[in-house]
Amino acid sequence: MPDEVFKPIVAVVGVGAVGGYYGAKLIRAGYDVHLLLRGDYEAVRANGLQVRSALEGDLLLSPERLQIHRDPRQVPKPDLVLVALKATGNAAFTSLIGPLLRDDTAILTLQNGLGNEDQLAALFGAHRVLGAMAFVCVQRPSPGIIQHIDHGFLKVGEYAAAGHQPPGKTRRVEQIAGMFRSAGVRCDVLDDLRRGRWEKLVWNVPFSGLGTVLDLTTDRLLATNVGVSLVTALMNEVIAIAAADGVELPADVIERNIRHTVTMGAYQSSMQVDRRQGRALEVDAILGEPLCRAKALGVATPSLEMLHRMALLIDPAASSADPP
Amino acid sequence: MPDEVFKPIVAVVGVGAVGGYYGAKLIRAGYDVHLLLRGDYEAVRANGLQVRSALEGDLLLSPERLQIHRDPRQVPKPDLVLVALKATGNAAFTSLIGPLLRDDTAILTLQNGLGNEDQLAALFGAHRVLGAMAFVCVQRPSPGIIQHIDHGFLKVGEYAAAGHQPPGKTRRVEQIAGMFRSAGVRCDVLDDLRRGRWEKLVWNVPFSGLGTVLDLTTDRLLATNVGVSLVTALMNEVIAIAAADGVELPADVIERNIRHTVTMGAYQSSMQVDRRQGRALEVDAILGEPLCRAKALGVATPSLEMLHRMALLIDPAASSADPP
Repeated sequence: MPDEVFKPIVAVVGVGAVGGYYGAKLIRAGYDVHLLLRGDYEAVRANGLQVRSALEGDLLLSPERLQIHRDPRQVPKPDLVLVALKATGNAAFTSLIGPLLRDDTAILTLQNGLGNEDQLAALFGAHRVLGAMAFVCVQRPSPGIIQHIDHGFLKVGEYAAAGHQPPGKTRRVEQIAGMFRSAGVRCDVLDDLRRGRWEKLVWNVPFSGLGTVLDLTTDRLLATNVGVSLVTALMNEVIAIAAADGVELPADVIERNIRHTVTMGAYQSSMQVDRRQGRALEVDAILGEPLCRAKALGVATPSLEMLHRMALLIDPAASSADPP
Repeated sequence: MPDEVFKPIVAVVGVGAVGGYYGAKLIRAGYDVHLLLRGDYEAVRANGLQVRSALEGDLLLSPERLQIHRDPRQVPKPDLVLVALKATGNAAFTSLIGPLLRDDTAILTLQNGLGNEDQLAALFGAHRVLGAMAFVCVQRPSPGIIQHIDHGFLKVGEYAAAGHQPPGKTRRVEQIAGMFRSAGVRCDVLDDLRRGRWEKLVWNVPFSGLGTVLDLTTDRLLATNVGVSLVTALMNEVIAIAAADGVELPADVIERNIRHTVTMGAYQSSMQVDRRQGRALEVDAILGEPLCRAKALGVATPSLEMLHRMALLIDPAASSADPP
């Protein structure tokens, strides 16, 4: 990546709700952004990209303002790849991301859950990889149309493979954070990405996992004592895995997460939305990988284990992949 | 109950799908049946009772053929009370059944799950109480209209309080079984009602409980290995509680239940139907009581325990009864 003024070429892989939202912000700010599309290509070519937001105002990008591609080999080699595929689409990493890379291209995944950075590192080299947690409520009701509901800030950090010290706040990660900030996105830099991932899982495991399995919005999960006790049991298991993985989470993490979630009202996680629309669920990234770490580290997680099996059971993708 | 020809006065308490189905059969066979109705009273008074069945033919009882009541004090004292309330309505036992009873009135509950006989025995005396498992697929799409889908046979037995020997096949239980048979209902007599209850719970806990919590029909629960493993884990816990309760279930009970359920296709348990229609769920009878027995008997049932909490969480009745 160039060292002077940071005006990178950016490729966005996966222009759904999250990729479309951040991609549009960067384009508006004048960055050289290339969008790699598959199913939505024709719709975006015809109608452009719209981010509708009552909170931030609408952002309408006509087709002439977009650089869109169907074939990764036709994208100019970028300095930075933003990965915003659903984690259920990670099997396409090789074919979609491989052709984009120069020696010094960095890859930042904005995906949910655990294991995405590891997969990218295994395929393309750990030195390229960064991760971000996107704290944003967005949906994609139809191709090229993104509905922004709330929030939008990022926490970004350098990847470290298991057993390696986190590299901390590198020049590269600071540059990327600066790019997002200059596009109007609040962006914090993490010393330790892994800690950030575990912190976010404390929220995702109960509110995405349990909420999807029971098809209950966040307010319903927290409306009764029995709900709070289930949510808390799952959070405690995530905290225990994180601790075994070397990440001590702050003592008030459960209380803070519950308090914050109450303010969100009747919120549907993206996983719950996926279930209601019959799409594949991010079971692996949200539940499977944490469970896998728990087993490797010898941590007992009975609630997470049952939740994981239940999530597989309702996942249309898993159901077809696993005949009796 | 009279000893000679068994032509009892029967009162049916709860004329929903199950009470309406068996009540209609007894009325057609010429028995002296009184129906105690609440919400459906006006509809049944105006339009009578209809059992629609592609399998058995329709059975239409005009209002003139029915003896219906709103107030239990106006029902002639019956020889036999058939209890077919949802177990979620058991709080009404005292007011609905109390006024019906003579010294020798028997009470037969057709309700699902565990604990209904115990509640009736505690209120009205163990000597009165019998229980039946109704293996029937019926729904009540609107008041007085019963849709029969499949099956219909009963297994009936005398109640024995915890720690008491089952009284076996008494004259009374044989008479009741004979009454149902003469009305065209297949009816087996059980030596041991408790065994029958546990056997039925082996089916109900996974297929009603898990199916309702995940909102999946029986075929979906059995379509994948992960589904079969969850179903089997729950069945094994029920078998373990039954064993601790003195009931050894046959070795092939899991395999038989799964094999039979596969033949049922995309079956919705009544509990799943209740969830979809926003009605109170029989969480206590199907999951809570078995879990309570497990705790009393020191049996570890982690899957049942989590399932129970999840079921409470989706139960509209429990949610409103248990504010945060």
